[in-house]
Amino acid sequence: MAEPEDINFRTRKWIRPEDLNANGTLFGGSLLRWIDEEAAIYVTIQLGNERVVTKYMSEINFLSSAEQGDIIEMGLVATKFGRTSLTMRAEVRNLLTRQSILTIDTIVFVNLDAEGKPAPHGHTEITYERNRIPERLRALT
Amino acid sequence: MAEPEDINFRTRKWIRPEDLNANGTLFGGSLLRWIDEEAAIYVTIQLGNERVVTKYMSEINFLSSAEQGDIIEMGLVATKFGRTSLTMRAEVRNLLTRQSILTIDTIVFVNLDAEGKPAPHGHTEITYERNRIPERLRALT
Amino acid sequence: MAEPEDINFRTRKWIRPEDLNANGTLFGGSLLRWIDEEAAIYVTIQLGNERVVTKYMSEINFLSSAEQGDIIEMGLVATKFGRTSLTMRAEVRNLLTRQSILTIDTIVFVNLDAEGKPAPHGHTEITYERNRIPERLRALT
Amino acid sequence: MAEPEDINFRTRKWIRPEDLNANGTLFGGSLLRWIDEEAAIYVTIQLGNERVVTKYMSEINFLSSAEQGDIIEMGLVATKFGRTSLTMRAEVRNLLTRQSILTIDTIVFVNLDAEGKPAPHGHTEITYERNRIPERLRALT
Amino acid sequence: MAEPEDINFRTRKWIRPEDLNANGTLFGGSLLRWIDEEAAIYVTIQLGNERVVTKYMSEINFLSSAEQGDIIEMGLVATKFGRTSLTMRAEVRNLLTRQSILTIDTIVFVNLDAEGKPAPHGHTEITYERNRIPERLRALT
Amino acid sequence: MAEPEDINFRTRKWIRPEDLNANGTLFGGSLLRWIDEEAAIYVTIQLGNERVVTKYMSEINFLSSAEQGDIIEMGLVATKFGRTSLTMRAEVRNLLTRQSILTIDTIVFVNLDAEGKPAPHGHTEITYERNRIPERLRALT
Repeated sequence: MAEPEDINFRTRKWIRPEDLNANGTLFGGSLLRWIDEEAAIYVTIQLGNERVVTKYMSEINFLSSAEQGDIIEMGLVATKFGRTSLTMRAEVRNLLTRQSILTIDTIVFVNLDAEGKPAPHGHTEITYERNRIPERLRALT
Repeated sequence: MAEPEDINFRTRKWIRPEDLNANGTLFGGSLLRWIDEEAAIYVTIQLGNERVVTKYMSEINFLSSAEQGDIIEMGLVATKFGRTSLTMRAEVRNLLTRQSILTIDTIVFVNLDAEGKPAPHGHTEITYERNRIPERLRALT
Repeated sequence: MAEPEDINFRTRKWIRPEDLNANGTLFGGSLLRWIDEEAAIYVTIQLGNERVVTKYMSEINFLSSAEQGDIIEMGLVATKFGRTSLTMRAEVRNLLTRQSILTIDTIVFVNLDAEGKPAPHGHTEITYERNRIPERLRALT
Repeated sequence: MAEPEDINFRTRKWIRPEDLNANGTLFGGSLLRWIDEEAAIYVTIQLGNERVVTKYMSEINFLSSAEQGDIIEMGLVATKFGRTSLTMRAEVRNLLTRQSILTIDTIVFVNLDAEGKPAPHGHTEITYERNRIPERLRALT
Repeated sequence: MAEPEDINFRTRKWIRPEDLNANGTLFGGSLLRWIDEEAAIYVTIQLGNERVVTKYMSEINFLSSAEQGDIIEMGLVATKFGRTSLTMRAEVRNLLTRQSILTIDTIVFVNLDAEGKPAPHGHTEITYERNRIPERLRALT
Repeated sequence: MAEPEDINFRTRKWIRPEDLNANGTLFGGSLLRWIDEEAAIYVTIQLGNERVVTKYMSEINFLSSAEQGDIIEMGLVATKFGRTSLTMRAEVRNLLTRQSILTIDTIVFVNLDAEGKPAPHGHTEITYERNRIPERLRALT
């Protein structure tokens, strides 16, 4: 199966007993939790800001399941830079078989200022570098 | 504010430090995990079957946030009984202020047989009783 | 089995692998943790105060167990309004079979002021509304 | 302060953010979870059997609280060997100040056979050795 | 700072309150837990076998800490293919500042057969493809 | 088997499903997390200071595994008092069979001052009392 070239698969999880639902398959709620965390990380890198929040997720398709011992990986790609927001597409898949487990066409995060209000982020394109550093960390680089 | 009469708010959570994201507000991924678990419970009661899985969630709106010490409650109502599926609407809100935190118009679960294949569930209406008992538990009632 | 009319069963849990003890049945410590959280929520609603702590639990009877896939529900009812305290009765049961899992005749919480000292709460009767709002939240309602 | 000579304080916990309730003090439910686990371990050592379950706890007094950074220790001592049960007394205290945090006068565990039924355990006195080995582990010693 | 070219940084974590120790900095034990899981995943990909266990870790240097809100990433590279083992080097660093948090020169995993005994794995070189598929998953690819 | 007389085995864990890796044996990362927490507690008692951090671990040998239902215990002993550091040896073993599960010859913690900088701790010998009390707690003893 061809891999969508633009999606950036990074974080991996090894399914352990604590990730299972009562039927012994991967708990859907855990999946959603993991993809939301990975999206927050992706947004922080793209916007150079750690104050970002989930605003919206479009429909979520649970395409296949996973079981104990499976390794999954989470992928994201920015699809639209708004003035105060960033829109992404997400996919979770089995790392070895590459079978899709979950897809979300649209996840929107909002960029916040220090008071927690939406604020312009000033970016219009994906960075493949790590050159957008939150102010808090600039002295360290 | 008028409460939608049909939604059944049951499970409550008291937001503790372990539920916060790195910004100190309620972690969106935890919210999604909780509503998925509550939906699975709701479906089991409606279909009298414990083998049910999340198939689809429509768009999710994160309307407001919550912070440490807030109490939230999760609500669900069945909106459509398919042949092998059950469709619901969900809302999470602050229990005391009744402010909406998250809404999901459509969550679809599928009813499975012992082999994990979709199977007809035979129900067409909401039960307000607990009279649809999984086979495993019938001897105990 | 007749349901005690006054007990308010709200929060539900779906027993997953992470809730099991080393024997594969529901871990008693998890049960105690869940009922303590539910009691804290119940007290906050009754007293309109979020600063409340567990002071005392009377004897706890573990009447039956639960296993992976079971759905349980937690119930509470206020039995006595003291000057600075609230006393409750608690029960945890299997949601579908209504078999009792655990009962606690007396749980006492204490109402605290901003310095963490016991403080009068001014209430003498159960509320079935959500009209006792902590000061922190009043502007939001 | 004199230490009760017979109580065996063993397991320690360092209170981290995930152990706090919404008020920022030690979550009572976590305390109960920890003491239940420690009791199960104590019973296994005394009865040489891993199939043991919590049957009863007498009243629990929450004498003082604990906060982030505190180290606590859990203590147990057998007070009565029944035919199929073991009764204990428990205390949790601050390891450094030795201030009592919680006391439980009576915790009863039941000894089970392979089918999960109460079974005689054959012991009448506390062991201070580790000479009561479950059958599963005997080949390894 | 130049990035070591051969290390493969993949999984990321966003430090949340539950990851902190009692001093409010990243809990060293969590770090060790995460790098061990990431190593297990890396080994499974390299050996095409899911039955692998940690055998040895060489000295671990904790070079700097991390705090709430930081994003860290975990990196691994195979340094030696033994007959039944795989040896790796590991590094954890701050994703944005690239400051090293922890380094481990040598982590050794052992390849097991179905009975849990060390077994030859038949590989001598790093794969950059996902072409070493455990038998359990071959039908799915 | 003779027990090393100087090692102080205190904290115990009862292996539950949430502690297992995907192979169903004890997750190595959990082990490392537990021993790191126990070491931090041991250091706090020896140095009378709660501001301590893991600086270094020497090689770790995973000698045997553990499975669900096993009880393990963690042991530590100080081997060297540096000016600002404390060096320990650690062992984790099966509580009943006394089989070693993991050994670490050298764990080094550093003593910090209020600003998080290494600071002299002024101790040169192991205490078997609890007479080194952090300043924060002195008023309580």
